[in-house]
Amino acid sequence: MTITLQNDRLIRALLRQPVDKTPIWIMRQAGRYLPEYRALRKQAGDFLTLCKTPDLAAEITLQPLARFPLDAAIIFSDILTIPDAMGLGLHFVENEGPKFHRPIKTARDVAALSPPDPETALRYVMDAITTTRKALAGSVPLIGFSGSPWTVATYMVEGGSSKNFSKVKGLRYQSPEVMHQLLDTLAQSVQLYLNAQIAAGAQAVMIFDTWGGILTPQDYRDFSLAYMQKIVSGLTRQYNGQPIPVTLFTKNGGQHLAAMAETGCDALGVDWTVNLSDARARVQDKVALQGNMDPCLLYASPEDITRAAQQIMDSYGPGPGHVFNLGHGIHPDVPPEHVAALVEAVHAYACD
Amino acid sequence: MTITLQNDRLIRALLRQPVDKTPIWIMRQAGRYLPEYRALRKQAGDFLTLCKTPDLAAEITLQPLARFPLDAAIIFSDILTIPDAMGLGLHFVENEGPKFHRPIKTARDVAALSPPDPETALRYVMDAITTTRKALAGSVPLIGFSGSPWTVATYMVEGGSSKNFSKVKGLRYQSPEVMHQLLDTLAQSVQLYLNAQIAAGAQAVMIFDTWGGILTPQDYRDFSLAYMQKIVSGLTRQYNGQPIPVTLFTKNGGQHLAAMAETGCDALGVDWTVNLSDARARVQDKVALQGNMDPCLLYASPEDITRAAQQIMDSYGPGPGHVFNLGHGIHPDVPPEHVAALVEAVHAYACD
Repeated sequence: MTITLQNDRLIRALLRQPVDKTPIWIMRQAGRYLPEYRALRKQAGDFLTLCKTPDLAAEITLQPLARFPLDAAIIFSDILTIPDAMGLGLHFVENEGPKFHRPIKTARDVAALSPPDPETALRYVMDAITTTRKALAGSVPLIGFSGSPWTVATYMVEGGSSKNFSKVKGLRYQSPEVMHQLLDTLAQSVQLYLNAQIAAGAQAVMIFDTWGGILTPQDYRDFSLAYMQKIVSGLTRQYNGQPIPVTLFTKNGGQHLAAMAETGCDALGVDWTVNLSDARARVQDKVALQGNMDPCLLYASPEDITRAAQQIMDSYGPGPGHVFNLGHGIHPDVPPEHVAALVEAVHAYACD
Repeated sequence: MTITLQNDRLIRALLRQPVDKTPIWIMRQAGRYLPEYRALRKQAGDFLTLCKTPDLAAEITLQPLARFPLDAAIIFSDILTIPDAMGLGLHFVENEGPKFHRPIKTARDVAALSPPDPETALRYVMDAITTTRKALAGSVPLIGFSGSPWTVATYMVEGGSSKNFSKVKGLRYQSPEVMHQLLDTLAQSVQLYLNAQIAAGAQAVMIFDTWGGILTPQDYRDFSLAYMQKIVSGLTRQYNGQPIPVTLFTKNGGQHLAAMAETGCDALGVDWTVNLSDARARVQDKVALQGNMDPCLLYASPEDITRAAQQIMDSYGPGPGHVFNLGHGIHPDVPPEHVAALVEAVHAYACD
């Protein structure tokens, strides 16, 4: 499957190598803001059915690339595929988000879990990746991803989304050893899962730690970062002679960037609550940075979007190592033309 | 109304003066975790009726002080009293939180707003303060409060709580001048409101900026901090010969503490995502610090709560200027005995 990439800006930037233009991709670039996605979903079934049907997942993955000259595809999937494969019964309730039929409540529940075999239980993800890679035919790289152990654990224990995270933090404060056991099982699962994605064709991988930022600084290190570090150490970093860059992203993790840069990953995602110039100073160019436009800025006019994109690239400053992205997933009510304006603005900017 | 306080630890600590014991109060200390509050609410009416009935608001304010040797009372009220007084139609929907019948949508809506006269439109808050002060009889100080202009604006524009803040950020990015006009009206309103609370008997005031942390660093300064600074500059800082300390609290504002310390306020609230030792280094002892236990730590055992409280006080380090608190409001399902353990642990700690 060795293919020379026609556009390798993303891989080069993640490895802090020079590029002709700043690469850009957008978190949730395949999704509800695109009319063609809404049409396909209406026709083909609910979100999870789309994820679990490789041909549909591949088709959705490619949709934004047909519209915009993005520098990467990211496989259409969800951060909760692992607990689903563990048998917790993932489903989605309209306007409420993900739910589990069988959330984790006790030490016994945790002890009963084991890492799912990605080649069987998560075969549909691997098939979607392989199908997408074939269709991309080396035009741009394909990104694979997983939720972080802590983030996945919050949904497993809360039974879905949460406001106060009372259940998962209750477990952490009342039975830290049980929480560590859960996180350890999840770290093993994520490592197997991402390595299987790489073997299936993912050319870069990213770990989404959406909820690491709700922890105290010490707990962030002990209950989130430590497990991400473990995963990073166990990932396939070269495949078929190609380097596989690894990106970590903790939302609201601006205060932890320096520690995150020590994990051995290649790049960090940065949300919009920190300036890239400050972020870069904190990581001292040990890693590349990906981000960091406020997703709500895409409600502004194309002129203002262009200006804001330029400011973000100015803020990163000279030298390689910047991948443009939003600081979180794109909102469903953003006009696609505003995305077009953003991609154009990023590519029009003169790199040095 | 000059009364010598029997317990002035809070005022002294907020002014960075030495104290015999670290003072403690708890955000939302009068509220749903107390069975006596739930009983009164069941009997007397919904949340807003309680806020708007001065004798009930005073009674609720005093409830936690009858249980625990807290070092301050905080008036039972809400951060959305100002937009309610502006006529937006505040109401609360069970399990959904605050809602407005008439949210702010257009430049015209903003232009039609004017600062409510606190002596008439918010008379019930002043009466609750005066009643509570009489009942306290100088035992501990009474804290008054308001939402920050930015935070109050988010609810006014979203029409209630929000996940993505798409509407308020849409307004900010599409019509920044309209947003500034709204914030300016709110800043005038908050200044009048807090000064009226001080005249009615509030002995310290706090501004809650719950949602400042969702902004970019530049927008935090321009759209939240600038207006809080304006308010701080216009507040009554001495009343009847007594200093009135002012505390600012931006949730998820750890990265902004140094800038916040330059506003001329006396103290900053700190959430649990930053260590107090780091926070103190950032503000260079220009202000006192209030915080910063994770509210979920109150789910732990009394022994673990005690140990965690000691760690937080150790983290603050020697010297005056620490007010113990949670990093956010107490959760409704916390056992009151755990609060008792926390208050005891804080007061048992040897100050130097």
